[in-house]
Amino acid sequence: MANGNGSFKSKPTSDTKGKTITCKAAVAYGPGEPLVVEEIIVHPPKKMEVRIKIIYTSICHTDISAWRGENEAQRAYPRILGHEACGIVESVGEGVREVKEGDIVVPIFNGECGECRSCKCEKSNMCERNGVNPMKKVMEGDGTTRFSTLQGKPIFHFLNTSTFSEYTVVDSPCLVNFLHPQLSLSLKHLTLLSCGVSTGVGAAWNTANVHSGSSVAVFGLGAVGLAVAEGARARGASKIIGVDINPDKFIKAQAMGVTDFINPKDEEKPVYEIIKNMTDGGVDYSFECTGNVDVLRDAFLSAHLGWGLTVVLGIHASPRLLPIHPMELFDGRNIVGSVFGGFKGKSQLPHFAKQCGHGVVKLDNFITHELPLEEINKAFDLLIAGKSLRCLLHF
Amino acid sequence: MANGNGSFKSKPTSDTKGKTITCKAAVAYGPGEPLVVEEIIVHPPKKMEVRIKIIYTSICHTDISAWRGENEAQRAYPRILGHEACGIVESVGEGVREVKEGDIVVPIFNGECGECRSCKCEKSNMCERNGVNPMKKVMEGDGTTRFSTLQGKPIFHFLNTSTFSEYTVVDSPCLVNFLHPQLSLSLKHLTLLSCGVSTGVGAAWNTANVHSGSSVAVFGLGAVGLAVAEGARARGASKIIGVDINPDKFIKAQAMGVTDFINPKDEEKPVYEIIKNMTDGGVDYSFECTGNVDVLRDAFLSAHLGWGLTVVLGIHASPRLLPIHPMELFDGRNIVGSVFGGFKGKSQLPHFAKQCGHGVVKLDNFITHELPLEEINKAFDLLIAGKSLRCLLHF
Repeated sequence: MANGNGSFKSKPTSDTKGKTITCKAAVAYGPGEPLVVEEIIVHPPKKMEVRIKIIYTSICHTDISAWRGENEAQRAYPRILGHEACGIVESVGEGVREVKEGDIVVPIFNGECGECRSCKCEKSNMCERNGVNPMKKVMEGDGTTRFSTLQGKPIFHFLNTSTFSEYTVVDSPCLVNFLHPQLSLSLKHLTLLSCGVSTGVGAAWNTANVHSGSSVAVFGLGAVGLAVAEGARARGASKIIGVDINPDKFIKAQAMGVTDFINPKDEEKPVYEIIKNMTDGGVDYSFECTGNVDVLRDAFLSAHLGWGLTVVLGIHASPRLLPIHPMELFDGRNIVGSVFGGFKGKSQLPHFAKQCGHGVVKLDNFITHELPLEEINKAFDLLIAGKSLRCLLHF
Repeated sequence: MANGNGSFKSKPTSDTKGKTITCKAAVAYGPGEPLVVEEIIVHPPKKMEVRIKIIYTSICHTDISAWRGENEAQRAYPRILGHEACGIVESVGEGVREVKEGDIVVPIFNGECGECRSCKCEKSNMCERNGVNPMKKVMEGDGTTRFSTLQGKPIFHFLNTSTFSEYTVVDSPCLVNFLHPQLSLSLKHLTLLSCGVSTGVGAAWNTANVHSGSSVAVFGLGAVGLAVAEGARARGASKIIGVDINPDKFIKAQAMGVTDFINPKDEEKPVYEIIKNMTDGGVDYSFECTGNVDVLRDAFLSAHLGWGLTVVLGIHASPRLLPIHPMELFDGRNIVGSVFGGFKGKSQLPHFAKQCGHGVVKLDNFITHELPLEEINKAFDLLIAGKSLRCLLHF
C-alpha cells in the first residue's frame, strides 16, 4: 500500500456499511460566504456508487470560482465543494466490482464510464455520462443527494466529487483505484493527481504533445501553470517562459523548469512581442492558465506562425468571446482547450502515477501548506492571495 | 507531356526571352468595376523569377473578394487578379534551376521556398518568405512590378500569381513543375489543382485527416466545398452532409459524394440541431466554406462533443470575431483554419496530381464552363450567381 508521508496503514472499520455517517464537512451556504465547518449526514452509497473516507483534500481555483458563484446558473446552496482529494473506500453500493472496502482511491471530477462513445474514442476524455459538468448538483443515478444537514435538508454535490467532507459518495466511474503493486506515491502526492498536477502535466503531454527542444510559454504560474512547466521540462523543452504578475512565483517556478520570466507589470511592450523577440518569432506551445481573455490573446499571439499551438486551461467566467478573428486561424496557429489534461482518468491515471513515482514529474514542490479542515477558510485566503500552490487539508 | 483535353504540344518560341512581351490581360481598375481586357506589357523575369505563358486560368471567390475590394487595406489598382491557372515556362531569370523553358507549371499563391523554418517544419505549409499574403502587390525580390500599361504605368501583382494575363511573372518558389513522367492529367485538370480542388481535398486529407466510416458536414457547396466532399468521399466517409441555400447545387453535389442535403431556408430548426439528430450527436468533421460567421458557429456546433473538428476555409471579411466562448473549447470540439488544404505546394502537389490522375479524386465535375479571356466579366457573373463551379478562361 502507499508509503511515505501521509501513508495510511489501517483499513476503515466496516461497521458503518449501509448506515448513514455523521461527520465533519465544510459547507457553502451562499456566494462568497465563509464555509461553515459542521457535522452533516452522509447517506450510504446506492447502486454503482462508492462512499469514500477522504484522507486529504486540497483547493483549486475552480472551487473558488464556484464558492464565489461566478457563474450564476451554476449556483446551488447549501453545497459541499472540493474536487481534489485522496481517500479510502468505506463501502460500495450494489453492482460495484472494481473497488472494495479499504482500497485507496482518488475521486475524479471528469469521470470515465468506459461505455459511451467518448470513452471508446481515443481522441476524447469527455465521458458523455460522467464527464465534468458544473451544472450538476445531484447524483447521476437517482437525481438526489447523499448529503444532508442534521436537520435533514439536502446538501448539493459538486463536480461529481464534493471532497470537503470527511466522507463523500461518488459514482463509481468518478474514482480511480490506486491499489497498484508498483505504486510508490504517498497519499499526499496522490491527492495532487486528482486535479491540478494531472491537468497541467496532461495539457503539456496529451493535449499539446510538447516535444524535446521546443519552446513553451506558460501564462499564470499557479499550480496548474507550474504543472504545465513541470510537464514541459519532463518532455525536454529547452525554453520555458513563465508569465505572471506576482514575482513571488518566480522562485518556485525556477525549481520546476521555468527558464525565463516575464512580469507584464514591468514591461512596456505587449508580452507577446517580448516572447516573439526571445524565441525567433514565437513559441511552439503557449498555455493560458489565468481565465483572462486578454491574457488568452497574448498567449495566442505569442505562438509561432505556421505551427504554434495555444492550449486554454483557464476558467473563463467572462461572457466575452474568443478574442480571435476567423482569418487569424489561417496563420497556422491553433488553439485548443484541455480538460483534466486530456487524461482518461480511470484508464490512464494509474500509469501517470507510476511515472510520478519514478520521478519523471516531481510532486514535492506543489505542496506548500497543510491545515486541518477547520481552517479551510484560511486555506482559501492563501490560494486567493497567491501565497499557496496547494494547501492540503486533513481531517 | 500532358494529354487529354487541353493538351499543349508545342513549346513557346524563345525569341521573347529577355524582352518585354505585349499581351492581353484583364486589368482591375477599381473596386467592383468591370475588368478591362487590354494589352499590357510584361517585363522579363529577374533573379529567381519565372515568366509563364498562361494556358488556362479560372476564377475563385478570393478573386471576387479582391475585385470588390472587400478588405480596404488590401486594395491596389490597377491590378491583375487571378491565382488559379496552368501554363508553360516562357523564360527564367538568373539563378532559376528547377524549371526551364517549355516546362508545364502551375502557379501557387502559397509558395514554398524550402529554406525557411516553416518549410522545414512538417506541421506547416505557411512559407515565411513566399506564403500567401493578400497585402503583397509587388515582386518579392526588388519590390517592383513586372506589369505595366502601354503608357508605362505599373500594374500591381496579386497573390504571388496574377494569372488573368496571357503572360505573368512569379517568384520561382510560387510554381510547381509538372513535368512528371507519370502525369496523366490534362492542362485543364491541372488548373484545378492550383487552388480550389487542392484547398478542398487537402482540407479533408491533410488538415482534418478524415477517416473511413466517419461523418462529415460541408457548409457551402461551391468548388471548394465540393472538393472537400470529394476528398471525404475518397477517404471513405460514410455520411457527407451538404448545406447550402442554393438547391441547384445539390444535383452536382450528389455526383461528388454528398449523401444528405440541408437547405437552411427550408428548415425551422437551427442547422446544427438537424445535423446532431442525423448523426447521433454531431459529425466527426465539419467544414465552413462560406465566410459567414453565423454559418461558422453552426458548423462548430454541428461537430460532435469530445472530438468533433471544425475546419475553417471561408474568407471572413467581416470584422466580427470567432463566435465561440473560451469555455466552449473545453467541450472537446476543435476548430482550425486551413490554407491551400495544408499542402506544401512544391513538394506535395506532384504526388496529389498523380493521385488525381489515378482517379482517386474525380476532377471532371468541377469544370462547368469555358470562355475566352475576353468574356471574363461574364465568368465573374456566373460564379457570383452560383451558376458555375469553375469556368476555365483560355487565351
